[in-house]
Amino acid sequence: MPKNRLEAFSDGIFAFAATLLILNLAVNESVPLGGELRRIWTSYAAYAVSFITIGIIWANHHTVMHQVGHVDRFFLMVSVLFLMLIAFIPFPTRLLAEDIGKPESAQAAALAYGVTLTLTAVLFNVLWRYAATGRKLLRQDADERVVQGISRSFAVGPITYVVATLLALWQPLISAGMYAAIAIFYVAESSIFGRR
Amino acid sequence: MPKNRLEAFSDGIFAFAATLLILNLAVNESVPLGGELRRIWTSYAAYAVSFITIGIIWANHHTVMHQVGHVDRFFLMVSVLFLMLIAFIPFPTRLLAEDIGKPESAQAAALAYGVTLTLTAVLFNVLWRYAATGRKLLRQDADERVVQGISRSFAVGPITYVVATLLALWQPLISAGMYAAIAIFYVAESSIFGRR
Amino acid sequence: MPKNRLEAFSDGIFAFAATLLILNLAVNESVPLGGELRRIWTSYAAYAVSFITIGIIWANHHTVMHQVGHVDRFFLMVSVLFLMLIAFIPFPTRLLAEDIGKPESAQAAALAYGVTLTLTAVLFNVLWRYAATGRKLLRQDADERVVQGISRSFAVGPITYVVATLLALWQPLISAGMYAAIAIFYVAESSIFGRR
Amino acid sequence: MPKNRLEAFSDGIFAFAATLLILNLAVNESVPLGGELRRIWTSYAAYAVSFITIGIIWANHHTVMHQVGHVDRFFLMVSVLFLMLIAFIPFPTRLLAEDIGKPESAQAAALAYGVTLTLTAVLFNVLWRYAATGRKLLRQDADERVVQGISRSFAVGPITYVVATLLALWQPLISAGMYAAIAIFYVAESSIFGRR
Repeated sequence: MPKNRLEAFSDGIFAFAATLLILNLAVNESVPLGGELRRIWTSYAAYAVSFITIGIIWANHHTVMHQVGHVDRFFLMVSVLFLMLIAFIPFPTRLLAEDIGKPESAQAAALAYGVTLTLTAVLFNVLWRYAATGRKLLRQDADERVVQGISRSFAVGPITYVVATLLALWQPLISAGMYAAIAIFYVAESSIFGRR
Repeated sequence: MPKNRLEAFSDGIFAFAATLLILNLAVNESVPLGGELRRIWTSYAAYAVSFITIGIIWANHHTVMHQVGHVDRFFLMVSVLFLMLIAFIPFPTRLLAEDIGKPESAQAAALAYGVTLTLTAVLFNVLWRYAATGRKLLRQDADERVVQGISRSFAVGPITYVVATLLALWQPLISAGMYAAIAIFYVAESSIFGRR
Repeated sequence: MPKNRLEAFSDGIFAFAATLLILNLAVNESVPLGGELRRIWTSYAAYAVSFITIGIIWANHHTVMHQVGHVDRFFLMVSVLFLMLIAFIPFPTRLLAEDIGKPESAQAAALAYGVTLTLTAVLFNVLWRYAATGRKLLRQDADERVVQGISRSFAVGPITYVVATLLALWQPLISAGMYAAIAIFYVAESSIFGRR
Repeated sequence: MPKNRLEAFSDGIFAFAATLLILNLAVNESVPLGGELRRIWTSYAAYAVSFITIGIIWANHHTVMHQVGHVDRFFLMVSVLFLMLIAFIPFPTRLLAEDIGKPESAQAAALAYGVTLTLTAVLFNVLWRYAATGRKLLRQDADERVVQGISRSFAVGPITYVVATLLALWQPLISAGMYAAIAIFYVAESSIFGRR
């Protein structure tokens, strides 16, 4: 079973989930626009954090699929579950944008966002570790050091998101800040170390 | 006529129909979010069942197109009708999520969902059997045992969905449960038998 | 300039425009669902007619691009304008579905739909005739009889849609029926003559 | 790291952002449709300007990626930020369409549109100049005159959009007209000089 259609399907869902985020932005048309555009700053922040997060996961998926030589039906099914979580991201993003400023709803919004990204990170690990264990689905010529490097760096994701999610139980605002910080950290790290 | 653009168009519609499912999720912003997130659990369930169902059909479409060597205009037209039903799935999914708990609407919602998936399964069979009869559109080197295997396993889909749909006439909740069970069964079966 | 990314971009827009049509379907959640699902039958009809129409245009675009060997910047720009009309189709489709039954709005709805499809057919002809005149952008080995055949069959589109659109000035319902008849005719013709 | 999946992801976002623009069009269903279709002419204009603008950026991206031979992680991250702005365009497009006629909101709408396109043009320049400086990411056989030509023509974009954006501070309507003029100019220029 070739991997190119899985890549096409995955790229489609990554691209659509990221683009659908824009539908979360809305203004109240009955008041002057200038004030509205300042009021909804959390919507811009949530849009940027989720778009960049999806972009980073897409780039990492790119790295994973580059090491994968072929796929089996189990890998396909885990991919569908993983993509189901990617496509879910626009929903908790809207909740975070609209409810982080409401005392009675901020915790639920930060938890919903964190749980979604924690599950995404966990399933991404399942996907990779299934392919890499015993080099079952890897290319013949996959470099063992690259494989080990991916395994090490992927272990960080779920732990970071579990911490940020648990933080939402006491400090929803700091939890939300941590989701942003994770995205900024990745972009900054790529800016410094990701040049040829 | 090459088949690669049909694959690109199909992958686009599969991926997009699955991603659009997220627009069905909504909360009432005037009450605390925590309660709302628990109240809409049928929306999560319907999202998961439809996403996985579309994912499974996509994976099976992958299998079909792998056996197909070229396409003709009739195959293209049946594909368009088949994809029209795939892209329709988000609508009955929303109905099922919102109306399965309302006594006066549950039956209509479960019927709408079932009729859509039954027609999808029937058209998928028409598509495959047109290609496979007399090996008209198959690759020269398509393995006859694989071809027979697809034909056998595809016969199950319409029957299962007809049964689940008819069930909606008496027991809408059990019908809805059966749609979920079909999706879970496929994922579980792939988890057990779909490993290399 | 290679043509593969234009195909990818076009396939994306064809697939998204067709899939977005589903967002036009909505029911009133405050009345029993069964009646609502019967009441909105014009929405199903409009969805099917527009999805099939986009599918037919996509299949014809497939045929055109198969004859085209390379593209220039003028061809790209006409393609963008053509795709702008394809992506516009969901809007008049919603108007047709919702307003064809309202005496004071049916004419405007049928006109909006017809003008959109007439312009689409005209731009599709501009696109093809620019590529085919003097065989400017065609493949070296493009068969002259196929080229002539496409030119002849494409001439029919704008004329048919102009007639259906003008009909809307007197008989919006018959005009709407003619849009449906055109789609059904193409599918039926392919079913009879489009087999290998 | 190969560039083909970046192209697929980018094409998906370009195509999807352009297609989502149609969701900005809406009419008031409680008044006759004919009048409504004339009243919302700014929505058609904004749809066309943004669709063509995205189409032009897509065609230019096509030109850039044709010169690029491979990508690194920094290029991927800048691409994600660039695509984040492309996917953002539907939001200020809706603001421009709905608010350009309201004295108290026109300026904010024209500024929002201009700032978005200015940032897009700036990031597109960063993307290109990073790839082209020292020919770091270019193909071995990239023609130096083509590379210089792209660099020169790309410098114009941010300047033009900064001027149009600043104009919004005094004359929002003229600013909006300038966004349209830029799009029309590109299409006209391609129509005259873009033929083989």
